Amino acid sequence: MRDAMRNIALILTYLGTDYHGWQVQKNLPTVAETLEKAAAMIVGHPVHMTGCGRTDAGVHAKGQVANFHCESTMPGAEILANLRRYLPEDIGIYSCKDVSPRFHARLNAREKTYCYRIWNSDAPCVFERRFVAVMPEPLDVEAMKQAADLLLGRHDFSAFCGNAKMKKSTVRELYAIELSRQGQEIQIRFTGNGFLYNMVRILTGTLIEVGRGVRSPESIPALFGAKREQAGFLAPAQGLCLEEVVY
Amino acid sequence: MRDAMRNIALILTYLGTDYHGWQVQKNLPTVAETLEKAAAMIVGHPVHMTGCGRTDAGVHAKGQVANFHCESTMPGAEILANLRRYLPEDIGIYSCKDVSPRFHARLNAREKTYCYRIWNSDAPCVFERRFVAVMPEPLDVEAMKQAADLLLGRHDFSAFCGNAKMKKSTVRELYAIELSRQGQEIQIRFTGNGFLYNMVRILTGTLIEVGRGVRSPESIPALFGAKREQAGFLAPAQGLCLEEVVY
Repeated sequence: MRDAMRNIALILTYLGTDYHGWQVQKNLPTVAETLEKAAAMIVGHPVHMTGCGRTDAGVHAKGQVANFHCESTMPGAEILANLRRYLPEDIGIYSCKDVSPRFHARLNAREKTYCYRIWNSDAPCVFERRFVAVMPEPLDVEAMKQAADLLLGRHDFSAFCGNAKMKKSTVRELYAIELSRQGQEIQIRFTGNGFLYNMVRILTGTLIEVGRGVRSPESIPALFGAKREQAGFLAPAQGLCLEEVVY
Repeated sequence: MRDAMRNIALILTYLGTDYHGWQVQKNLPTVAETLEKAAAMIVGHPVHMTGCGRTDAGVHAKGQVANFHCESTMPGAEILANLRRYLPEDIGIYSCKDVSPRFHARLNAREKTYCYRIWNSDAPCVFERRFVAVMPEPLDVEAMKQAADLLLGRHDFSAFCGNAKMKKSTVRELYAIELSRQGQEIQIRFTGNGFLYNMVRILTGTLIEVGRGVRSPESIPALFGAKREQAGFLAPAQGLCLEEVVY
């Protein structure tokens, strides 16, 4: 049925601060629910919004991709203009385009990039405070880079999965981890073929423990196929942003 | 009396969004009032906070300087730590230092730099939306630069003063106006020896009218010594930020 329907893909950005994540939940405001309500009003029937990355509560996005099927014949440009009019100011739509009826924002994604921002200073961070995690203690960025290199490649990231009941494969491939310091901020950019629940935040927490000196870069390889408690802590959601998806 | 008291200078930042400007006002939250309350609690007596730039409602600061006199013998580092603890998260203190009893944050300032940020695109601006003025129409940046050059120097900026009852001199000197486009954003950075009430916002509004083509760069010199209504519109407060003060 859906295979014959019009399929629309959105590229969008949002500030995750006031949302309980992407995924629709009962009685809690989520990004997908907010988009579904706006889109339903525009196309005249209920819609289901499929997001590429089901971001956690508080996580942001600058290049999220979503798709929904609809029966409307309204031109894409008009749907875009109406979405921009109806959506709250913490959700912004970059583009709205017709795509193949079989396109699936999550299943067809080949590569995703997330960026984690750490405010590594005890100086105040007023303007960017909603987009960073504040961690003022000294962090050894060189050791973190060594550990990051050891995380690259195709591995069983079971220890980096926040879902204890995960039954499917926990094997993923990490293509790149770029660590850079820009003034008082450390940015960690992760690119991979897919990420498990909480995976980027646990990878970040593990790298931060290396930066603090409580974990050595050499201890990283033993984490592949290991249990959740062997990897690092879950870094706060607010420092994380889904930046790009490649199809 | 005050000349003998301890005098403390703060360098601070704030997000102006939720404040009715710097200056204390009856029954309205202002930045100075918030600082005065926190400082009074720490030093144990009421204080008067003198700001270098009395920013308008909604205007931000990244390098505001303020000073206050007090009788406390608490070390500066401890006052700093306490201020950071008591102040809301939209006000941040960079430093807190003892200065000469005669130091006056406003009267001793020799040079100030303000930056005005314009989001010049109809693409959504979600992350920076509180720090920019959204103006999606095409703007001729080259014409704006020509007009900016004609504003430089020592002039009677009466037409750029928002206070119709201003009795003191409206002569000021503009040292530099830097205009740059970075992606979808245009930044205008003004440096001068002092600015009249609303002056940066009216200068910005005038430059925007040049960018829109409704005013020519050549028309600028006729504005010196002219009336308020001859200059451009008052650009929105939220795009403006006090960046630096030199003593």
